[in-house]
Amino acid sequence: MTETLADIGEFGLIDRIHELLRKEGVQAPGLTLGIGDDTASFLPHAGYDVLVTCDCMVEGRHYMPQYITPLELGRRAMVLNISDIGAVGGNPLYALVSLGLRSDTRVSDVEAMYRGFVAELNPLDASVIGGNLTKSGDGPFIDITLIGEVAHDQAIRRSTAKVGDAILVTGYPGQSAAGLQLLLHAQRMKGLRDHPLVRAFNTPSHRAREGWAIAQSGCVTAMIDTSDGFLGDLGHICKESGVGAELSQEKLPISDVLNQAAQDLGQDPYDLILKDSDDYELIITCAPDHVGQICSAVSSVSDVPVTEVGRITDVARQIKLNLPDGTWSEMTPAGWDHFADSGGGHD
Amino acid sequence: MTETLADIGEFGLIDRIHELLRKEGVQAPGLTLGIGDDTASFLPHAGYDVLVTCDCMVEGRHYMPQYITPLELGRRAMVLNISDIGAVGGNPLYALVSLGLRSDTRVSDVEAMYRGFVAELNPLDASVIGGNLTKSGDGPFIDITLIGEVAHDQAIRRSTAKVGDAILVTGYPGQSAAGLQLLLHAQRMKGLRDHPLVRAFNTPSHRAREGWAIAQSGCVTAMIDTSDGFLGDLGHICKESGVGAELSQEKLPISDVLNQAAQDLGQDPYDLILKDSDDYELIITCAPDHVGQICSAVSSVSDVPVTEVGRITDVARQIKLNLPDGTWSEMTPAGWDHFADSGGGHD
Repeated sequence: MTETLADIGEFGLIDRIHELLRKEGVQAPGLTLGIGDDTASFLPHAGYDVLVTCDCMVEGRHYMPQYITPLELGRRAMVLNISDIGAVGGNPLYALVSLGLRSDTRVSDVEAMYRGFVAELNPLDASVIGGNLTKSGDGPFIDITLIGEVAHDQAIRRSTAKVGDAILVTGYPGQSAAGLQLLLHAQRMKGLRDHPLVRAFNTPSHRAREGWAIAQSGCVTAMIDTSDGFLGDLGHICKESGVGAELSQEKLPISDVLNQAAQDLGQDPYDLILKDSDDYELIITCAPDHVGQICSAVSSVSDVPVTEVGRITDVARQIKLNLPDGTWSEMTPAGWDHFADSGGGHD
Repeated sequence: MTETLADIGEFGLIDRIHELLRKEGVQAPGLTLGIGDDTASFLPHAGYDVLVTCDCMVEGRHYMPQYITPLELGRRAMVLNISDIGAVGGNPLYALVSLGLRSDTRVSDVEAMYRGFVAELNPLDASVIGGNLTKSGDGPFIDITLIGEVAHDQAIRRSTAKVGDAILVTGYPGQSAAGLQLLLHAQRMKGLRDHPLVRAFNTPSHRAREGWAIAQSGCVTAMIDTSDGFLGDLGHICKESGVGAELSQEKLPISDVLNQAAQDLGQDPYDLILKDSDDYELIITCAPDHVGQICSAVSSVSDVPVTEVGRITDVARQIKLNLPDGTWSEMTPAGWDHFADSGGGHD
């Protein structure tokens, strides 16, 4: 018989998770109180700010269990949060995991989800140090709080982009959004999980190492991850910095696989890149003569491409796209909105 | 027309919450990055451990909206977390609030909930510094991560109770559980919300100040809050410390109002105290000759009574209750279990 949470209970599950983390997770340096007390605690490094972020995935809204395995789900949920720490140039350290679960959830599925957390945390020497478990009713959820650190007052903000700055982006935004479209339009699932775009959706990459290296370069003026969509997040930079942006459509990075999928789906690849994105790439602004240093910083830690795609302007909150025929198109800097009726299911 | 989240959207709601916190909340000392970036950040005090805890309330499971106002709900959700920081002797500092909400939720109800958070945080000079908003589907939830501090390695644990220690408890556990029973058995709600036991359920008190003072006394050996029920949490101390406990039924503190309600409900008041509790009182262990110092520590910060109710024994994980006729009854140290089929809806 398949073992469920109702069989082993909350405290049985806590013991199993604790055991899994002890065996398979890294030991968190600096931890002074771990799982099994009212709180967890750690001794922060002197001269560092503590960073803290939280992000939540709700079943049926942010993920559909028929399309993603529990292991992938755990990885994806952790990547969302790691990405936020990376986007300010910080190092992830400790995670608290708050789960809302159905009683008939299989224990092995919860364990697989924790293996997903660990798969993303271990390479960063970060670990799960606590959390909460509760019964969810109809809407299971994974809510993660991730704690990191950055040298005091060195966090990279959204609000400090300067007029004339170059706008750069890592990787190929839109791949994850295209993967979701492939899943939604698929006649059958067989083999689809191995498609590179579906993998990009189910287990996106974070750019925490790249974000850290970019911050260390001292050349970045503002940074954000593309979790609300490329335009949505560029819009956040523009709003918070009181600036605008001009993008060049020809410079936007499109991977061959995204181009092919857009053709197959009958969709505009630029819509996938600009509006849906749903990846965890970084948008970076810097003085134009610092672009080379930003690229060097990234290439010192990974082979992810960095592409210059536009300039920051002085027209507050206006984002314009330069089309190949030389004309300009004004863009709406709206990303995912959780409560708009037409809003997507992304975060 | 009543304004809902669908009307103003996620980012409209973030702006409203930000504005409310700016006007009505205290300014968090040490904050280096607040609401509106990918992460929040703060500069911790040198020589202090950072404490972190999270606790979640799910509609229909931890609360029923017909019985509790949004303001009370906000207070209750925050008290749960403040209590966990207090139970290790720490000071609460910063909260991250992750909400799963329906699109048709009224904006004014979300604002009232935040006023509840602020009502509990302001007196402690603590504040909301970030969070997450998402659409929840059928099961709205409030998931809070609370960050605090305690002098390095001075957090009070569950695992350090000693054989022969006195067992103390603050206040009158069971009042909140009795309040819930009154709500569930009520023929009509009119006036019921003002009943002291219903108030104890909807807006329980935390004992963070008392917990801090107890820790400062240097006399406490172990401490925990009664969030899993008195026996459940005494059971946690026994399990983690490798000890047992003997309680005296005659010494258990029963308030007059609880006694009266138990009679009206036809329930055993000791069941309400020991099993259901659902309050956020503290269970404290200390050497018998330190009881006076613990009581003095508490009375230096509040008028909450402290009652000695038993002793720690060397029979690992066995909890016995001494009845007025001199006989002993062995108790099952089980508190709320979220996934057991008969489990209650408490945390």
